Amino acid sequence: MTASSSSARFTAVYRVACEASRIEARAQALALEQSVELPLDAVHDRRVRDQVVARVESIRPVDHGAFEVAIALATETVGHDAGQLMNMLFGNASLQEDVALIDVEITPALASLFGGPRFGIAGLRALTGVHGRPLSCTALKPQGMTAMQLAELARTFADTGIDVIKDDHGLADQSAAPFDQRVPAVARAIDGMPALYAPSITGSLDDMRRQLDIAQRNGVRIVLVTPMVSGVSNVTALAREAGVALLAHPALAGAARIAPHLLLGKLFRLFGADATIFPNAGGRFGYSQAQCLAIAAAVRETCYDLRASLPVPAGGMNVERVPEMRERYGDDTMFLIGGSLLVAASAVRARCRAFADAVRAP
Amino acid sequence: MTASSSSARFTAVYRVACEASRIEARAQALALEQSVELPLDAVHDRRVRDQVVARVESIRPVDHGAFEVAIALATETVGHDAGQLMNMLFGNASLQEDVALIDVEITPALASLFGGPRFGIAGLRALTGVHGRPLSCTALKPQGMTAMQLAELARTFADTGIDVIKDDHGLADQSAAPFDQRVPAVARAIDGMPALYAPSITGSLDDMRRQLDIAQRNGVRIVLVTPMVSGVSNVTALAREAGVALLAHPALAGAARIAPHLLLGKLFRLFGADATIFPNAGGRFGYSQAQCLAIAAAVRETCYDLRASLPVPAGGMNVERVPEMRERYGDDTMFLIGGSLLVAASAVRARCRAFADAVRAP
Repeated sequence: MTASSSSARFTAVYRVACEASRIEARAQALALEQSVELPLDAVHDRRVRDQVVARVESIRPVDHGAFEVAIALATETVGHDAGQLMNMLFGNASLQEDVALIDVEITPALASLFGGPRFGIAGLRALTGVHGRPLSCTALKPQGMTAMQLAELARTFADTGIDVIKDDHGLADQSAAPFDQRVPAVARAIDGMPALYAPSITGSLDDMRRQLDIAQRNGVRIVLVTPMVSGVSNVTALAREAGVALLAHPALAGAARIAPHLLLGKLFRLFGADATIFPNAGGRFGYSQAQCLAIAAAVRETCYDLRASLPVPAGGMNVERVPEMRERYGDDTMFLIGGSLLVAASAVRARCRAFADAVRAP
Repeated sequence: MTASSSSARFTAVYRVACEASRIEARAQALALEQSVELPLDAVHDRRVRDQVVARVESIRPVDHGAFEVAIALATETVGHDAGQLMNMLFGNASLQEDVALIDVEITPALASLFGGPRFGIAGLRALTGVHGRPLSCTALKPQGMTAMQLAELARTFADTGIDVIKDDHGLADQSAAPFDQRVPAVARAIDGMPALYAPSITGSLDDMRRQLDIAQRNGVRIVLVTPMVSGVSNVTALAREAGVALLAHPALAGAARIAPHLLLGKLFRLFGADATIFPNAGGRFGYSQAQCLAIAAAVRETCYDLRASLPVPAGGMNVERVPEMRERYGDDTMFLIGGSLLVAASAVRARCRAFADAVRAP
């Protein structure tokens, strides 16, 4: 493969459930579905046949009567848009139950097109001033509390030494704690403390920009975004212009039959997430330890000049698990513990302190 | 249930795979996951417990050892945002493999919050001038063709009497046929003919607005949008402001473990789709006839003052199937036939004419 042909295409890997006798035809149909959406006989233009129609590169059997099919997609079909990349990778195939998207080769062309994290691990360490140990993170919740109640809780979190306080992803712009009240209240409550507050940025791109403006006027340096709800194109727009770090939340992403290490790991990083939250094994969600390690690897491994981003295991974690998680994920990690800090009203401060201490242990 | 309590909550129905002995606890955990994301013991505020925490309304066994669980979500948790509605319906639950979202009760509060189609069936009939029969639709493709080639194909489509010519959803803003060249070229090619051209609007909300502006300056009255790629919040923003009809494409929507009649039917309509494309049974996708009829019912049935929207069965259809589809879906339908019109280069015009004639048959 020459240099020019390698920038002209990139490989996507699908897992296809199919009988062996049909897999060649099925793979070819998938390549057509994810490019020209036409039978090959209906593609009359030679350039389109040669340069645009996706090509089956390899088919190999995997367990359970399924196959891994590698397909070379034409980079030109992506244009310059993250949403269009998702569309070319899995738009129509998502409607076919026998197919899952397993992996995507991030080529130099894709890396330079989207740019990845603007802060990444190094930038987040600079923002928080935390070096040589993992970061701690917790969530402001529950939704329905007033801005003042949430601000008070944030103060407790910050006071006990937790590094990052994010909005629960259920906090948006609701009447109980409207964004333009919540963010200034929380910012004031933790003013002068080292904790960073990451408010949740939601709605249309207009809404997100309006919220970001409020946040930045209140000194916010990192925000929570949900790429699969907001649309990845809007997240890349924010990454380009916002000047704040992006913490990606996996809401609505889990069911998309896209491998977690690919979607939450590689792709969210490619689109600019500086840190990405994922449901850690052994919590409320069914991800395996292998899947979780694959996510952590995908956001930190070398990928051209893309910055590494910070893995954030979460979803039903507790302070007791910090040493085990630290051993597993290492220090370039942020541990997110939410509900278990809040269960006993009288012990919130003590639990938060224990969490903050656990990530500081040598 | 009083009027005020009914506007304060709306019901979402989930299908949960679970043993009978565990379903009560599992349903309660789901209600917490999709609202406060905390154990109930950690919710200390009485108002939040009473008015914000989601409530399990009913659990009933269905086939295959699964249960349908109805959960009443608090309307206040939605704020005013379509993305936040998706988030509260299925954000975190999407990460749990035992749960699917089956149905949502559209309450008057939700209907008035989002407003549904701005054109709907009546508006699309007014735009196209087609009454008393189904509408025909085809797709400009393949991607990789130049703007001039696509314009020439559009002219053939329009000339044979097809009602709506949409961009293939793979056409975005790519170098082969950039949006700002393709749209004027196609518009010119079909100028003076009754066919409507529906270009595909993609990218961030900024990109979509820029493209919409180009489209409208070229007389475009209907556009193709992909809500699950663009983010539903951005689609509702366009519905509010665009003044063009919206044709919704299901890309990336199929794998989300959300029932098709709910996502492509009810929710896309609620968010403003005037017509919605879905993979018809017996085509390239695995939707059953019952699922397809449920989608068609969901977009047309009475729902407060929401306009009805137009079902668009598609995905591997051909002219021979028009009579059968017409019998099944009735006349308030748009049939979308793409690739099969284009297979034999020499017969494109004849196939298009046959399609246009088939929808005009008495």
